[in-house]
Amino acid sequence: MDKPQVLIVMGSDSDVPIMEEVAKVLDQFGIAWEMRIASAHRSPKKAAALASGAAGRGVKVIVAGAGMAAHLAGVIAADTILPVIAVPIPGGALNGLDALYAMVQMPGGIPVATMAIGKAGAKNAGLLAVQIIALGEPALSARLHGYKEAMAEEVEAKDRALQQRSPVA
Amino acid sequence: MDKPQVLIVMGSDSDVPIMEEVAKVLDQFGIAWEMRIASAHRSPKKAAALASGAAGRGVKVIVAGAGMAAHLAGVIAADTILPVIAVPIPGGALNGLDALYAMVQMPGGIPVATMAIGKAGAKNAGLLAVQIIALGEPALSARLHGYKEAMAEEVEAKDRALQQRSPVA
Amino acid sequence: MDKPQVLIVMGSDSDVPIMEEVAKVLDQFGIAWEMRIASAHRSPKKAAALASGAAGRGVKVIVAGAGMAAHLAGVIAADTILPVIAVPIPGGALNGLDALYAMVQMPGGIPVATMAIGKAGAKNAGLLAVQIIALGEPALSARLHGYKEAMAEEVEAKDRALQQRSPVA
Amino acid sequence: MDKPQVLIVMGSDSDVPIMEEVAKVLDQFGIAWEMRIASAHRSPKKAAALASGAAGRGVKVIVAGAGMAAHLAGVIAADTILPVIAVPIPGGALNGLDALYAMVQMPGGIPVATMAIGKAGAKNAGLLAVQIIALGEPALSARLHGYKEAMAEEVEAKDRALQQRSPVA
Amino acid sequence: MDKPQVLIVMGSDSDVPIMEEVAKVLDQFGIAWEMRIASAHRSPKKAAALASGAAGRGVKVIVAGAGMAAHLAGVIAADTILPVIAVPIPGGALNGLDALYAMVQMPGGIPVATMAIGKAGAKNAGLLAVQIIALGEPALSARLHGYKEAMAEEVEAKDRALQQRSPVA
Amino acid sequence: MDKPQVLIVMGSDSDVPIMEEVAKVLDQFGIAWEMRIASAHRSPKKAAALASGAAGRGVKVIVAGAGMAAHLAGVIAADTILPVIAVPIPGGALNGLDALYAMVQMPGGIPVATMAIGKAGAKNAGLLAVQIIALGEPALSARLHGYKEAMAEEVEAKDRALQQRSPVA
Amino acid sequence: MDKPQVLIVMGSDSDVPIMEEVAKVLDQFGIAWEMRIASAHRSPKKAAALASGAAGRGVKVIVAGAGMAAHLAGVIAADTILPVIAVPIPGGALNGLDALYAMVQMPGGIPVATMAIGKAGAKNAGLLAVQIIALGEPALSARLHGYKEAMAEEVEAKDRALQQRSPVA
Amino acid sequence: MDKPQVLIVMGSDSDVPIMEEVAKVLDQFGIAWEMRIASAHRSPKKAAALASGAAGRGVKVIVAGAGMAAHLAGVIAADTILPVIAVPIPGGALNGLDALYAMVQMPGGIPVATMAIGKAGAKNAGLLAVQIIALGEPALSARLHGYKEAMAEEVEAKDRALQQRSPVA
Repeated sequence: MDKPQVLIVMGSDSDVPIMEEVAKVLDQFGIAWEMRIASAHRSPKKAAALASGAAGRGVKVIVAGAGMAAHLAGVIAADTILPVIAVPIPGGALNGLDALYAMVQMPGGIPVATMAIGKAGAKNAGLLAVQIIALGEPALSARLHGYKEAMAEEVEAKDRALQQRSPVA
Repeated sequence: MDKPQVLIVMGSDSDVPIMEEVAKVLDQFGIAWEMRIASAHRSPKKAAALASGAAGRGVKVIVAGAGMAAHLAGVIAADTILPVIAVPIPGGALNGLDALYAMVQMPGGIPVATMAIGKAGAKNAGLLAVQIIALGEPALSARLHGYKEAMAEEVEAKDRALQQRSPVA
Repeated sequence: MDKPQVLIVMGSDSDVPIMEEVAKVLDQFGIAWEMRIASAHRSPKKAAALASGAAGRGVKVIVAGAGMAAHLAGVIAADTILPVIAVPIPGGALNGLDALYAMVQMPGGIPVATMAIGKAGAKNAGLLAVQIIALGEPALSARLHGYKEAMAEEVEAKDRALQQRSPVA
Repeated sequence: MDKPQVLIVMGSDSDVPIMEEVAKVLDQFGIAWEMRIASAHRSPKKAAALASGAAGRGVKVIVAGAGMAAHLAGVIAADTILPVIAVPIPGGALNGLDALYAMVQMPGGIPVATMAIGKAGAKNAGLLAVQIIALGEPALSARLHGYKEAMAEEVEAKDRALQQRSPVA
Repeated sequence: MDKPQVLIVMGSDSDVPIMEEVAKVLDQFGIAWEMRIASAHRSPKKAAALASGAAGRGVKVIVAGAGMAAHLAGVIAADTILPVIAVPIPGGALNGLDALYAMVQMPGGIPVATMAIGKAGAKNAGLLAVQIIALGEPALSARLHGYKEAMAEEVEAKDRALQQRSPVA
Repeated sequence: MDKPQVLIVMGSDSDVPIMEEVAKVLDQFGIAWEMRIASAHRSPKKAAALASGAAGRGVKVIVAGAGMAAHLAGVIAADTILPVIAVPIPGGALNGLDALYAMVQMPGGIPVATMAIGKAGAKNAGLLAVQIIALGEPALSARLHGYKEAMAEEVEAKDRALQQRSPVA
Repeated sequence: MDKPQVLIVMGSDSDVPIMEEVAKVLDQFGIAWEMRIASAHRSPKKAAALASGAAGRGVKVIVAGAGMAAHLAGVIAADTILPVIAVPIPGGALNGLDALYAMVQMPGGIPVATMAIGKAGAKNAGLLAVQIIALGEPALSARLHGYKEAMAEEVEAKDRALQQRSPVA
Repeated sequence: MDKPQVLIVMGSDSDVPIMEEVAKVLDQFGIAWEMRIASAHRSPKKAAALASGAAGRGVKVIVAGAGMAAHLAGVIAADTILPVIAVPIPGGALNGLDALYAMVQMPGGIPVATMAIGKAGAKNAGLLAVQIIALGEPALSARLHGYKEAMAEEVEAKDRALQQRSPVA
């Protein structure tokens, strides 16, 4: 397997059903990834080590997913100069609004690129990683243009289908 | 000066006007404190070192204040078994609501004792530290009872003053 | 049974499924507890009596859980100098956000150590109680270090398991 | 002075500028009132005594104003069967939203009649007290009808004034 | 049947499962009530007629329940000098928070006594109506004291039951 | 079929169950409509073309439904001078509150007439379109009056039905 | 002066500084307007009369502005079949969020076209009124196209100006 | 001047005081930028043209700032495969919370890397752009490490300064 270009980190294995959306997108673009579990609170040294060692292992982008008082992305960003993308995981009484605030409201100096709460955000985290990597790999740019065209065509197809049936029951 | 029993940590010197409320309360009870600046994001190793070294230096309680995506209390709690008290600092577009969520919504395993946003929270952080230390110092318990009585008497005095004037202009 | 060191109070027996998380953690550390029902609104004298009598019976920490306009923790804190830890109970139309605000935003003078809404908060309430009691019982400190190590190892194990299977369906 | 029919209680003398709106309305209707300071947290016994003794002293309605984690109205309602009206006081980082939630979201069994945050709420608390007392004093009903007519006429007058000038600069 | 002392109005028959809590409490205290459907938006004249005619028919208190942009209580309060109690009905995407704001934030001049969102609020609306009516009916006061004592005893019984079993599974 | 007077646009076919409420209302009033799928993000050119071409095809009102960071209504409003009505679609972790803010908080210069989140909003979007078209078609005005009367009568019928049964179980 | 085509209603003369933005836009397009004060709560009969009489006097669109628990737009919409546009007025402790919810979350059957909170919303209310009236007045359509072009050109001019100076101090 | 690698777009020249923070950071790292004004609503064609033409002119990253119902970043992301970073601009009644939701809650397929509301977010947008560009320019990586070290040293210096003075007045 290729050396991973994207490191996907999450706080718990219960986050896999959301965070695998990141991996699925990367697979579509043929970008190698590595998925790891590390916690800002329960294994802080491991999280810091993963962050500080990533660039040396060839990782270009880190995606971090966490819920509630989600510190994982910020803690990783503190220990790397790689772009860090954050996915707020829904759940708990505030359903991810807490994770959103805890990720997006980073103080000046330590950027964290925050996505939408949940699966849409995880998918977009994968795409943003592709867009970033594509700056250095022209072949990926062509595929991203193709991806955009496929999305537009999918909308077109759904629109045509809607025209052909009576949409109102 | 005595060895500090309470370590007061904050992310920036701009937090001093709020966090000095912690120190004022501790001074009232004769408890030695140390005030430090460390950032979960800009100086993560220092924050971790302060946290993990605190117990060994005789610290009994740590109070952490931070604003926005406030990770400091959680990051410190990750590296100590001492009680950690969090003070959300108001400011920014969300005025501390982000800091409140980022502090209080800690996942299971790493408790952070969260106070109200701002000066009231900082004052109460000091008092909670006193209450915790008082469990091992009976003399402090008596002073805490006196503090409570003084509060009740202050309410009483304000009530009497209100009776003696016409409160409605 | 040992004299309880932690008093767990809740407003209704419907809160037991959440608040028993406090007791489970205390059991793990061998700390005796007592669980009581008292209401700030329906049995205020009992709540006050429980609070004011706790220290005399050897209680060191009080944990209070309540939902909606959750006054129980504040009302108990008004009548004791022991550390009071609050667990906002989810439920109702605002799902615990009301309880969180009603617990954490205490005015200066009466601290209440507020945890996350729901089970994670209840678990952390138990751990904070252990951390506080451990200041006077060195044996507990060692167990807390062990607990932290076990958490880190559990993360490690989950991470290894994730490496050994293809996480993306 | 007449025996007060309305007891106005607040947690601090800093609440007087808001709570005097209650008294002003009562003065308009010739209803005697008493304004007191008592705190659910700093003087809980006094708050309970004011509440439980009010009916015996001829009080018919209690208005309670408090800010932040506003427990005063609920605590008073716990110790009386008189109608209790709550005025959330703005202030602090959440500007009274915390007080609103802590007052209006009372669990079943202990009603608290909650008004708007701030001066409009205090004025309406006075009017609701008049409406309640008017059920037993027919003369007040006539005055309440007059008050309503005066409000309508004031709107009418403002409307006429607006017609007579060019409202757009 | 007796002439109703409490008029219970709601915007739709889908609100009955919540608003019948008002009637249940009134039944416990032997207070006659009438339940009506009227809408501030779909039948505004009827709502206004119900409001302005209520006092003449012997009604002493009006309870209004509505959801979403809940205008019913305010619209009724505009056309009566009787005390109006509001119950925000949960439902829709904002689950009653919209109804709460639309009821409690009344401008000065037209009080609406707002309760908690949902069934707890409806129950308390019934109790507040009893408290108001009890000012003119001493026999009701005794029953309200009895109700309070029963609530305290119920808490006591639940507490005893909790002591007799092991609450932690 | 008649040339459509109302263009109903949505971002995805998953929005049909909500947006068909618009069409149902228009059918009740005999107004021809067209339902299309276009995305502000995945097919921006198509969305712009639909918007800029609508007036020329005889469309009088455009209704746009979208969820999450709902840009569709604003993007369409940018490319037409026809009235644009927005329906926030519920869903995702914020359940449509994000869509509401993203639609209603339009900056000055580009109005978007925003409705309630979900089906009630979709139904009202249809009615507002009828009201707008009715300004030029007097026959529709009569039908709108009839619609209002039918709503009032429906309330009346539900009220009568409620009187005839015991509403409290 | 011409017979007004747009009726601008607000709850108080304190709303004029916001609501005059509606009139300013209408003046730009040469559309006659009338500005009136009426309150859903303090002068409900007048508000209803203004609403029900508007169509007969030639009014085509009604714009209603109100703050806090803003019922004015809904109450007017209940008594007219004309399009009603709502402007939430900022102010009070919730700064217009209450008014937004109380206006936009209308139940099905009574549409209210809600704009942004404050001046931007008032300006857009004027523009939406012009767009609606333009459906029957082709000359206005041309002017609306001109307005859009002027906006685009203004952006262009600001962009050119920005290019010509160093924007960073 | 060098060909710009970062395109900074904003909806209005009133956003310059916030968005110049992006440029200041880029200047520190010697990265050429271009600052433009374009509006998703008032000049949609220009915004689309800027987006679709950026890659061809050598731009690598686009930063978009907007307030209220902030569509600019999403609209630009729809027309480019370059990474798009969003800065929510505070202001208006919701003070940027609306802009945050309208930017971060992007549906799947079109990522927008969202930063904190206001100046901290703008500064971090600049840093994220540097981190992304640094993947292809090793010299920048060294400077980013230097930037991080300078931040840590600044914290260190502030901490030392705090030790040397009595922080409590």
